[in-house]
Amino acid sequence: MDEARRGGEAQRGSRSSEVKGSAWGGVDLGGTKIEAVVVDAVGRPLGNARHPTPGDAGPKDVVRAIFDALEDASRSAGLAPRRLAGVGVGAPGSVDIQMGTLARVSNVGKGWTEPYPLAGALSDLVRGPVVLGNDVQVAVTAEYRLGAGTPYRSVLGVWWGTGVGGGLVLDGVPWRGRGAAGEIGHVVVNPGGSRCGCGRRGCMEAYAGRGCLEHKVRKAVRRGEKTMLFEWMRKKDRTRLTSSIWKKALDERDVVATRLIDNAVLMLGVGIASAINILDVDAVILGGGLGTRLGIEYADRIYEAMRPHVFVPERQPPVVLAQLGELSGAIGAALLAEPPLH
Amino acid sequence: MDEARRGGEAQRGSRSSEVKGSAWGGVDLGGTKIEAVVVDAVGRPLGNARHPTPGDAGPKDVVRAIFDALEDASRSAGLAPRRLAGVGVGAPGSVDIQMGTLARVSNVGKGWTEPYPLAGALSDLVRGPVVLGNDVQVAVTAEYRLGAGTPYRSVLGVWWGTGVGGGLVLDGVPWRGRGAAGEIGHVVVNPGGSRCGCGRRGCMEAYAGRGCLEHKVRKAVRRGEKTMLFEWMRKKDRTRLTSSIWKKALDERDVVATRLIDNAVLMLGVGIASAINILDVDAVILGGGLGTRLGIEYADRIYEAMRPHVFVPERQPPVVLAQLGELSGAIGAALLAEPPLH
Repeated sequence: MDEARRGGEAQRGSRSSEVKGSAWGGVDLGGTKIEAVVVDAVGRPLGNARHPTPGDAGPKDVVRAIFDALEDASRSAGLAPRRLAGVGVGAPGSVDIQMGTLARVSNVGKGWTEPYPLAGALSDLVRGPVVLGNDVQVAVTAEYRLGAGTPYRSVLGVWWGTGVGGGLVLDGVPWRGRGAAGEIGHVVVNPGGSRCGCGRRGCMEAYAGRGCLEHKVRKAVRRGEKTMLFEWMRKKDRTRLTSSIWKKALDERDVVATRLIDNAVLMLGVGIASAINILDVDAVILGGGLGTRLGIEYADRIYEAMRPHVFVPERQPPVVLAQLGELSGAIGAALLAEPPLH
Repeated sequence: MDEARRGGEAQRGSRSSEVKGSAWGGVDLGGTKIEAVVVDAVGRPLGNARHPTPGDAGPKDVVRAIFDALEDASRSAGLAPRRLAGVGVGAPGSVDIQMGTLARVSNVGKGWTEPYPLAGALSDLVRGPVVLGNDVQVAVTAEYRLGAGTPYRSVLGVWWGTGVGGGLVLDGVPWRGRGAAGEIGHVVVNPGGSRCGCGRRGCMEAYAGRGCLEHKVRKAVRRGEKTMLFEWMRKKDRTRLTSSIWKKALDERDVVATRLIDNAVLMLGVGIASAINILDVDAVILGGGLGTRLGIEYADRIYEAMRPHVFVPERQPPVVLAQLGELSGAIGAALLAEPPLH
């Protein structure tokens, strides 16, 4: 409310630099939806909005849609338009943080492969600084600072969803290497094995990612195996095997679903344990659509699957569940805009 | 010479705290030898000495042997006894840096499994501060600061020898996690595969470590395969297949040696690429007995073996050879004692 008043005053003539500073925007840019949130100085959500990602649109339209979602989120937070002190955007694809460009996000904008100056274009609309980040990394950073990771100094986030993304926070600092670190989904768990969405073979994601799992179900059906997965998909009027469909299939002991998820858990155990042997962080945070939907039972199963491969078994780090829910990516993006968090 | 003069003066009465400060000691503690070095303020070796690790001895005898090696190295640097400003020790096994203890080094001292206060005991002898570190990590740190890693901000060191050790320097800071990071030899490259020296299955070391390779050669011989490896071992009067024996076997196109090393290279490619996908560091430094002996040809082959598995192939980091040679571990240990490096 205070923000709204100050926003109102600003419109009556005070300079924007004097009134901005108490609310930050965060955007989680996905292939199907744009999740926008407005947070206060300690990262607490004040309002949020979800817009569909425009289908068949170019980068310009996507930027406009992001701005609209931010304005909606601002409204729901009681803020006047364009009152955000800064905005962060978490995006898939290839993010160049220094240049503020986003490339290779064909699942977001139509034919969006070349670098587009997303930060600059959005900055013109919101009239404030915009920072880009990797979608999974910012979600992991949010969990580290405000969620499941708060008791730890260093964490590995494993986002188990359509793909298997990862994020690292080492001694409090997000680690991105030269920009592409955290790709735990592409740790090779079975050289020459199953084909992955990335085109390579034997990646952890090839066994655990929802996209690759669906591919394996279709193959099983073609081989004549019986599963209820696609029937539930049709009943729920979906075009993909969503996390909730997988959850139902496991609850109902669907044989194909159970076998594939059992194998996914085994391979997650192998790949995450390998990462722990290299990094020796304090904890693993399990997030993502499948991770959060399948919940603590599967976090525990992944912990057990890691056990045979962890080099210092007496100090195997816990596998904890992400806590911030669907807003974690957007909140983490807002943290990129550096609210003081005091 | 300046050092020697100052050391001499010290013996004629000045207090030790006034004259220490220009030379630091470093020790690489191995199962067969103790390598000691004395370095100047920029990490340059002033003198060194190599002593055998006392066989069948307890921790106390090992500490005494370390001290003797340091005193020899000091002498060869022209220093009077006990003139080192500080000493660092790189050791295998389980190092507790805070407590200054070393445990689980059964290959060093007889039955040395419980934590022993190595730092304190050695400090009493050298009459100065002693810091412990992991043997591979300190060697990698030395390469980072003074050798092959100097052009880079972040590196992964892979020490290919009896085992396959690893070390990380991230943005200039050695990364040890909770003390056990860098165990790249125990990245799982083939779940359920070959037995590793650590007792687990499918570790990279199980395919690439010299210890496990020798085990595979013995199995091949039992199966009736022909190899010259053991004959060269006897001719060289060795009890183990050393790096130079492997080098000769490859040069002579020994079939068993070639097949096993080819497979080792493939598996090193898988495991190191997986680590790169997680960490995205600037470069890989290849060291260790086998790594340095097989040289640049094999660094290049490992680079090629990584290629199919690297997630961002256009930015695959180079694999460069360690440059500091056999003293890298001891020099890196000396850096633990924090010479100013100005």
